[in-house]
Amino acid sequence: MPDFAIAVDLGGTNLRIAAISTDGRMLEKIGLSTSASGPHQVIDEMCDAIQRLTNQHRSSGSLIGAGIGIPGIIDLDAGVVRTSANLPGWENYPVRAEIEGRLGARIYLENDAKLAALGEQWLGAARGVDNMGMITLGTGIGGCIVLDGKIFHGMNGMAGEFGHVTVEPEGVPCGCGNRGCAERYASATAVLRMAREAIAAGNAPQLAQAANGEAEFGAKSIYDLAMQGDKPARDIFDRFGRALGMMLADIVNVLNLEMFVIGGGVSSAWDAFAPKMFEELRARSTIYAATMRHDAPIDGSVPASRTGKQTIIARAKLGSDAGLFGGARLPQL
Amino acid sequence: MPDFAIAVDLGGTNLRIAAISTDGRMLEKIGLSTSASGPHQVIDEMCDAIQRLTNQHRSSGSLIGAGIGIPGIIDLDAGVVRTSANLPGWENYPVRAEIEGRLGARIYLENDAKLAALGEQWLGAARGVDNMGMITLGTGIGGCIVLDGKIFHGMNGMAGEFGHVTVEPEGVPCGCGNRGCAERYASATAVLRMAREAIAAGNAPQLAQAANGEAEFGAKSIYDLAMQGDKPARDIFDRFGRALGMMLADIVNVLNLEMFVIGGGVSSAWDAFAPKMFEELRARSTIYAATMRHDAPIDGSVPASRTGKQTIIARAKLGSDAGLFGGARLPQL
Repeated sequence: MPDFAIAVDLGGTNLRIAAISTDGRMLEKIGLSTSASGPHQVIDEMCDAIQRLTNQHRSSGSLIGAGIGIPGIIDLDAGVVRTSANLPGWENYPVRAEIEGRLGARIYLENDAKLAALGEQWLGAARGVDNMGMITLGTGIGGCIVLDGKIFHGMNGMAGEFGHVTVEPEGVPCGCGNRGCAERYASATAVLRMAREAIAAGNAPQLAQAANGEAEFGAKSIYDLAMQGDKPARDIFDRFGRALGMMLADIVNVLNLEMFVIGGGVSSAWDAFAPKMFEELRARSTIYAATMRHDAPIDGSVPASRTGKQTIIARAKLGSDAGLFGGARLPQL
Repeated sequence: MPDFAIAVDLGGTNLRIAAISTDGRMLEKIGLSTSASGPHQVIDEMCDAIQRLTNQHRSSGSLIGAGIGIPGIIDLDAGVVRTSANLPGWENYPVRAEIEGRLGARIYLENDAKLAALGEQWLGAARGVDNMGMITLGTGIGGCIVLDGKIFHGMNGMAGEFGHVTVEPEGVPCGCGNRGCAERYASATAVLRMAREAIAAGNAPQLAQAANGEAEFGAKSIYDLAMQGDKPARDIFDRFGRALGMMLADIVNVLNLEMFVIGGGVSSAWDAFAPKMFEELRARSTIYAATMRHDAPIDGSVPASRTGKQTIIARAKLGSDAGLFGGARLPQL
């Protein structure tokens, strides 16, 4: 029987813990709540669950370590969370030392979006592709570069900040200090902002109606209207796709990687934004156009046989489990 | 005595060959002409010169190999030039096999701009910096990414195409098929185009006078006018600096490397474009601003002590010898 790793996905409201074999099988998965708990209590519950899973699967192999995904900026050397919007009270808490002390196992911390990329590279859309990038579309845009099967961190762990590539030099101000960042046009937040702007301008009656009628009016409602053919909603996703295509063109040209995987919750709006995204990418990246296979499916999905050296743009495959698989991969690298 | 490598810089009009010791001393340098010669003749002369240099320095150490810089797209696996605007007739010529056959030494081919980056990393502005990028300002913008002291090629050898990062989405058409590429605003070609546009618009009398009076009117003449305070000439280099700053902001955010070195002939106009470049970079890259040392010289040059983990933007140091040093470094990697 193969050995196994523990993977932890630590979020602001949920804590998920899994035992995954070194050959990539999900052995068991546990879901806990973290709301209204301080770091100490969460670590206690996490360690109990890890211990339980470890005992359960010890008969089938040994524990090789645990990879823990955390939303925020992690000091990898110190094993400490530096800043996290979703985990107030965790700043500078010695996460790795606390867990290692209680479990006696090797613990690896990593940003959660970067672990999702590693999971997709190991077992998902980029399986077998050693050099890839991942774009995570959520409230903002997360990014990760994987080189030789390992996360490329850059000097300060900030490599892969794709969402802050400028796509409109005089565009919408961004929290980062820049204007016109890609994530101001291609994220859940951006979709909602553009919808509110269209409603305020008075030429989006269906969007206005939905915004008034639905308690949970959001990116999903706007996507539904776009797919029903509502012009103002379609325009929003066209702009989304163009911004994403421009951003992709820049990173395809700079990095010349084999594949870019697009994931995150908002990637489920693929049908609404992908056509403009590919149109813009083809027009703006000579490397993409030059390496595009003529028999590649027009939606950019992976062709059946990858014999050429084309740049592939693909949708993520592992959904919300990507980060868990990435966490289980970390101790193996 | 240390061993030595042979470095070759093969250009459209000049052929330069050097013997460089493995500890980085230039032992001897030879200059030849290549004009009006076919590949066969040039390879003959090159091999004679390499042989001469090798015999000359054999007493002091052994030849470890030769690195050859070529302007164009090289198939590194095959050892063949694929396309080169400056070397007509060299396409698909088996350069490496021909030279290896005659000399019996290990031959390494590489794009010339990438070798310049490797030279700067080994012995120039980025000495001691393992992860860096280089931007070469010439008729266009060349680029190179060095990771762990080695050239990062990407999937098709095209990684580091910084010049085709979009800085003006609806801007000037580029030969690559895109619009508003950085090199349409920050290169010798761009400076001349912007000057011609200003002259045609009729509001650049001094530029018009220089264009009519000087046989060699070019980027240098426009730079001289800018430094004398001529407003239209200054505006051109301001736009140059802003475009370069926007491009740098994107690549600093995406790559988070320790240092970016700016070289190439047009980097001598540094005083004219650097202020706007740094202004734009600070405004647009949160990573640059966050990692900028407060005691760093305002011109972005390397501070005396590099204790922090800041992103450094520095001028190249080795001039036209950078490519030769890079060529001598290749066989050592």
